[in-house]
Amino acid sequence: MWRLRWQTVGLAAVSLGLALETLGFVLGWLRRQRRRRRPPRREVLFFPSQVTCTEALLQVQRQGGPQAAAAAAAAGPEARRAPGAALAAAPPAPGAALAAAPSGCLCPLPHGESSLSRLLQYVLSARSSLELCLFAFSNPQLGRAVHLLHQQGVRVRVVTDCDYMALNGSQIGRLRKAGIQVRHDQGAGYMHHKFAIVDKKMLITGSLNWTTQAIQNNRENVLIVEDEEYVRLFLEEFERIWEEFNPVNYTFFPQRK
Amino acid sequence: MWRLRWQTVGLAAVSLGLALETLGFVLGWLRRQRRRRRPPRREVLFFPSQVTCTEALLQVQRQGGPQAAAAAAAAGPEARRAPGAALAAAPPAPGAALAAAPSGCLCPLPHGESSLSRLLQYVLSARSSLELCLFAFSNPQLGRAVHLLHQQGVRVRVVTDCDYMALNGSQIGRLRKAGIQVRHDQGAGYMHHKFAIVDKKMLITGSLNWTTQAIQNNRENVLIVEDEEYVRLFLEEFERIWEEFNPVNYTFFPQRK
Repeated sequence: MWRLRWQTVGLAAVSLGLALETLGFVLGWLRRQRRRRRPPRREVLFFPSQVTCTEALLQVQRQGGPQAAAAAAAAGPEARRAPGAALAAAPPAPGAALAAAPSGCLCPLPHGESSLSRLLQYVLSARSSLELCLFAFSNPQLGRAVHLLHQQGVRVRVVTDCDYMALNGSQIGRLRKAGIQVRHDQGAGYMHHKFAIVDKKMLITGSLNWTTQAIQNNRENVLIVEDEEYVRLFLEEFERIWEEFNPVNYTFFPQRK
Repeated sequence: MWRLRWQTVGLAAVSLGLALETLGFVLGWLRRQRRRRRPPRREVLFFPSQVTCTEALLQVQRQGGPQAAAAAAAAGPEARRAPGAALAAAPPAPGAALAAAPSGCLCPLPHGESSLSRLLQYVLSARSSLELCLFAFSNPQLGRAVHLLHQQGVRVRVVTDCDYMALNGSQIGRLRKAGIQVRHDQGAGYMHHKFAIVDKKMLITGSLNWTTQAIQNNRENVLIVEDEEYVRLFLEEFERIWEEFNPVNYTFFPQRK
């Protein structure tokens, strides 16, 4: 009698395991299919950006991780359009994230969309990896976004410029303290790129340094491109710089002659 | 007898005129067809660029105008490839311009291709218009290229930043003296774009300021994109800035309160 029961339990456990495995596989396949059907993202953001509250976006990310943010982004057809510069082919997502986000913030800032909020949404859409190659990085909202992604298991790597990383308000120290890998040059020319690669699929690049001064005051542009070839070339450039700026290559004392 | 002769001469003149008109039309049609068949240009240039001699490119442009440069660019299948970063879909032209150019230069610099020479070739391919929206512009080769295009009747318009236009080595003063229209901001934030639009068809944009320091020393990127939507958005941004920076809007003295 006992033997039979254990067999039943074992069989049930195996069936449950198989069912869960199958479910995971089917869900993954459905997600891949959906992603395949979605047209590639193409957008241009122009700055200066209106100053808007971005708490809602970061709250969504904190509460539910990349999945919740992605779900929020895909939630509603009420997605507001990009601020004046979206390409015809650009999909409405991730515009809906703000609408679907908790609206408890009572701060006096406007809570609509802006170039900054859209940039944040693209960065926050990372699920597995984020490569940042930034001359200057001091904007606190973008800093928090990158920090949150790191906490949620996204592999974040940062390359930056040695002259600007230690300036007042730089986010680099904070990110390093949080355990994010950062590499930098040693002063021969500037590391002047301003690009990010999300999940090895989306390229974010342009003239914009990730500083509040630039975001709120400068004339700037940022292209969002989902194109295999462009992403591959920028990823190769990132890996070249990542290897070149490997700390084992740093020179700390002048060579004897 | 005289009347008959004049009639013959008149008829011949009219026929000649019609033939020339038809020839022009046919040539234009052929050129348009050829341009339609050519795949859109897509390339990424990474910097720092190797220091190479670019005299040959500027000589071609000086001797024969845009047509000669374009012909030289399309001349040979021996076109050397871009320096390591061309997209698969990028056409070999304008790589052949250097090969087809006069090779009389005896300077000690290498005479091959570089990211700078490719950038120059794309700029020099302008035939009707060139919009420049540049934070800083001090590279003499690019300055000469823009000057030459202006001399050959290309409509050049420049928008730049007021803080950087008067620095040592800036090309802005030279271009203004040559009669090129330049407009600038009045100090509220930087005009930090770094893009050019060639013939309202090709967008050149990235992190690169057009300075020799950046070209030779910095890690930089420049995208070359022939895409109607991207070009339209950047052209709209240019026209917005062009109007906003119209000298009639400049404030020369503080307002009375």
